[in-house]
Amino acid sequence: MSRVGVLGARGKVGSAVCAAVDEADGLTLAAEVDVDDSLDLLVEHRAQAVVDFTHPDVVMANLEFCIAHGIHAVVGTTGFDDDRLATLTGWLDDAPGVGVLIAPNFSIGAVLMMRFAAQAAPLFESVEIVELHHPTKADAPSGTAARTARLVAEARRTAGSAPMPDATSTGLDAARGADVEGVRVHSVRARGLVAHQEVVFGGLGETLTVRHDSLDRSSFTPGVLAALRSVHGRPGLTVGLENLLDL
Amino acid sequence: MSRVGVLGARGKVGSAVCAAVDEADGLTLAAEVDVDDSLDLLVEHRAQAVVDFTHPDVVMANLEFCIAHGIHAVVGTTGFDDDRLATLTGWLDDAPGVGVLIAPNFSIGAVLMMRFAAQAAPLFESVEIVELHHPTKADAPSGTAARTARLVAEARRTAGSAPMPDATSTGLDAARGADVEGVRVHSVRARGLVAHQEVVFGGLGETLTVRHDSLDRSSFTPGVLAALRSVHGRPGLTVGLENLLDL
Amino acid sequence: MSRVGVLGARGKVGSAVCAAVDEADGLTLAAEVDVDDSLDLLVEHRAQAVVDFTHPDVVMANLEFCIAHGIHAVVGTTGFDDDRLATLTGWLDDAPGVGVLIAPNFSIGAVLMMRFAAQAAPLFESVEIVELHHPTKADAPSGTAARTARLVAEARRTAGSAPMPDATSTGLDAARGADVEGVRVHSVRARGLVAHQEVVFGGLGETLTVRHDSLDRSSFTPGVLAALRSVHGRPGLTVGLENLLDL
Amino acid sequence: MSRVGVLGARGKVGSAVCAAVDEADGLTLAAEVDVDDSLDLLVEHRAQAVVDFTHPDVVMANLEFCIAHGIHAVVGTTGFDDDRLATLTGWLDDAPGVGVLIAPNFSIGAVLMMRFAAQAAPLFESVEIVELHHPTKADAPSGTAARTARLVAEARRTAGSAPMPDATSTGLDAARGADVEGVRVHSVRARGLVAHQEVVFGGLGETLTVRHDSLDRSSFTPGVLAALRSVHGRPGLTVGLENLLDL
Repeated sequence: MSRVGVLGARGKVGSAVCAAVDEADGLTLAAEVDVDDSLDLLVEHRAQAVVDFTHPDVVMANLEFCIAHGIHAVVGTTGFDDDRLATLTGWLDDAPGVGVLIAPNFSIGAVLMMRFAAQAAPLFESVEIVELHHPTKADAPSGTAARTARLVAEARRTAGSAPMPDATSTGLDAARGADVEGVRVHSVRARGLVAHQEVVFGGLGETLTVRHDSLDRSSFTPGVLAALRSVHGRPGLTVGLENLLDL
Repeated sequence: MSRVGVLGARGKVGSAVCAAVDEADGLTLAAEVDVDDSLDLLVEHRAQAVVDFTHPDVVMANLEFCIAHGIHAVVGTTGFDDDRLATLTGWLDDAPGVGVLIAPNFSIGAVLMMRFAAQAAPLFESVEIVELHHPTKADAPSGTAARTARLVAEARRTAGSAPMPDATSTGLDAARGADVEGVRVHSVRARGLVAHQEVVFGGLGETLTVRHDSLDRSSFTPGVLAALRSVHGRPGLTVGLENLLDL
Repeated sequence: MSRVGVLGARGKVGSAVCAAVDEADGLTLAAEVDVDDSLDLLVEHRAQAVVDFTHPDVVMANLEFCIAHGIHAVVGTTGFDDDRLATLTGWLDDAPGVGVLIAPNFSIGAVLMMRFAAQAAPLFESVEIVELHHPTKADAPSGTAARTARLVAEARRTAGSAPMPDATSTGLDAARGADVEGVRVHSVRARGLVAHQEVVFGGLGETLTVRHDSLDRSSFTPGVLAALRSVHGRPGLTVGLENLLDL
Repeated sequence: MSRVGVLGARGKVGSAVCAAVDEADGLTLAAEVDVDDSLDLLVEHRAQAVVDFTHPDVVMANLEFCIAHGIHAVVGTTGFDDDRLATLTGWLDDAPGVGVLIAPNFSIGAVLMMRFAAQAAPLFESVEIVELHHPTKADAPSGTAARTARLVAEARRTAGSAPMPDATSTGLDAARGADVEGVRVHSVRARGLVAHQEVVFGGLGETLTVRHDSLDRSSFTPGVLAALRSVHGRPGLTVGLENLLDL
């Protein structure tokens, strides 16, 4: 039975995490901490692990405190560069047994889509990505699509895959989408869509398509709960939810 | 029981038409005419209707002969501009009762997709098109996708639809596809694909998708047979298979 | 500028309708009426049209009042049998100029899917339906899927379509789905799904698929607003949103 | 540069294999052997590996000959039970360095779909399978769908997954498909379809879909070529193409 503290507990994501922890078998919601609260609450309420969906400005201080007090951490906050990861590794070296998991994406579906994309990429002649989102999204392609494309490109470089066949010689340039390290990415924007992505693989006489549909913000909670259940068994720093999925 | 002559009978499409007519209930394959044969064969074998999948260079002579001899025609040959259509109309004015049907596409699925796209276009905030073809295709977007986009654009102009919502402000330009009269079109090219197109409509809380998959060249034959069965009942010039489908 | 009263205004659907009317161009939210309020509020606040998402037990009394007071009505409440429709028609005969629109479904996407399904049904050899919903749904197939199947079956009977080809001779019986008037319907239930339906049409060498994804309850509001904007121009009784869409 | 012999060389699959080997970089078509030819042709033409798409009645004799002569084998013929596999293992024990690969499916897309399905199965609450085939298929569900369902069921049993949620209580029994070891399988049959399968995984707020479309018989050739290129590096018996894909 693990006692969980939630940082950023009154934010949109944090409050959803609190609700999910509260309902989950084997986890107890021990402390809800937000911007005006002291981190000492975690110690007072004997939290064994925290979830941090806060802000790049405060996350390092939060983690320094947790590691110093032997509290494991599951982190969805963004902004980790190599410097920050090196700092964390240093702190963790001094705290054997403490585990920190940082993940840019806690959706199991999204993580599997990227994993499968990288595995299949060298086994087909062609790979393209179509992502579809609501029309209030500012960036195209989406961060997930760009990351998927780079994983595909890296897997093909490693395997020595040939360039993809494409005889396009006439038409409208943008029809073939954005080129991300040699992988074409297409961004559809339409009212009613939420967040969707297809990776299409093509070989002689067949195609394989991996599609992820994220229909509700709640899709990150199973990943957070899975992380909370396993973080104490993974001392040191782990980056990426895929390391927890037994693939 | 209608007697059918096939022009271009030894071409790839023509020979498939011959086979389909031969097997079809209510139709008899009366004459197979190719480039070195005389059109008089049609008269000798008492053809009541012809199918013409030949070449822009010869199709007008073929049709002049047929109309003069009271033979209906179903035409898949390309290259009809306004001048040619006016010429045909003149010939048909002098041959009451003779019907000529010209269609750029005999696939019932493709014709319905375009019809449904035009009908749905003004009823949703957003419409985008994704077409997917084999990687040896030279043009992007495909002719069918460009035609669908123009039909969508025209339907929205007529209805006074507002511009589609799109908050994209950062990213890679081509990710959002080609702009065809205000409608975004995305072209995927991958080995294993044949010819596929999706039209995605989006409104508050819902999407509607119309998808056409053409997996085999045989997909044009049901449209040709339907045209042969009804062309004698449609005197004068008809352009587009959609006029025959009871929509 | 039309003044709108909402009946059942504090219910889940009613309150969403109030919000949508309040934001809509050309419509004014004039009166919010719920179970404990008097219908006289509609007259006091000079409502020109009402939206009724209430209960079969009270909807007839609501409509009798509205028709008697010259107020148009847009009705999403269920339970209208032939007797009730006959009663309504009688009331409307005495109130020339008043329009009542009753619709079982206000989602434009769902209405179009059914319309397109009925139009395409006689033009292909095969039609099957796959519906996908959340796993807490009690009925399989869904009401929309069953209705679509009956529309497809009716269109094929009218057109004299042949039975669909199916050579299945071995296997597990239920694999081929439920038979609704000769149309196969398959029901998928999975966590994460909301409400989705595909109608697959197949002919020689091609398929056409019409898919509706309803991702949010808000999907009915554009249909309700469209109905409010046109109901005053359609005196008498109209059943089905499809009559308002200019198809 | 590997010299390849093809057994069953004049059958439909065998002749496609001959053509593919003939065109492939790094492989030479050394011998084409059919039912009336002597296996000695393989030795005469110094074949280093064979492809066997023949018949259960002759495949064991073929393999005994090849193993005895130090020729590797890639086998798509069916009918291998435990007895036959044990016999093969015995022969291979006496021929160190010789490799035999037997695979029920050489489509890389189908093999990956099954692999991904087994990996994802324990990570989601719900899994269902929809397979779609041409209407002349005799069995429902398809062999691939049944095999996928059993792999999913086994992965979930091993992981101790809970039963899938399903509140269906009213409706038409067959709507929910066939039950294969607790996994629902739905079989769509429509003209125009070739061979397609979707595996739908559902978790809180998201779904992941893996779809395989096999549009042409040629889809098995890349798997056969990959097997030919690696079989000499895998002495002994290997069952399943997935062992060759670097997953």
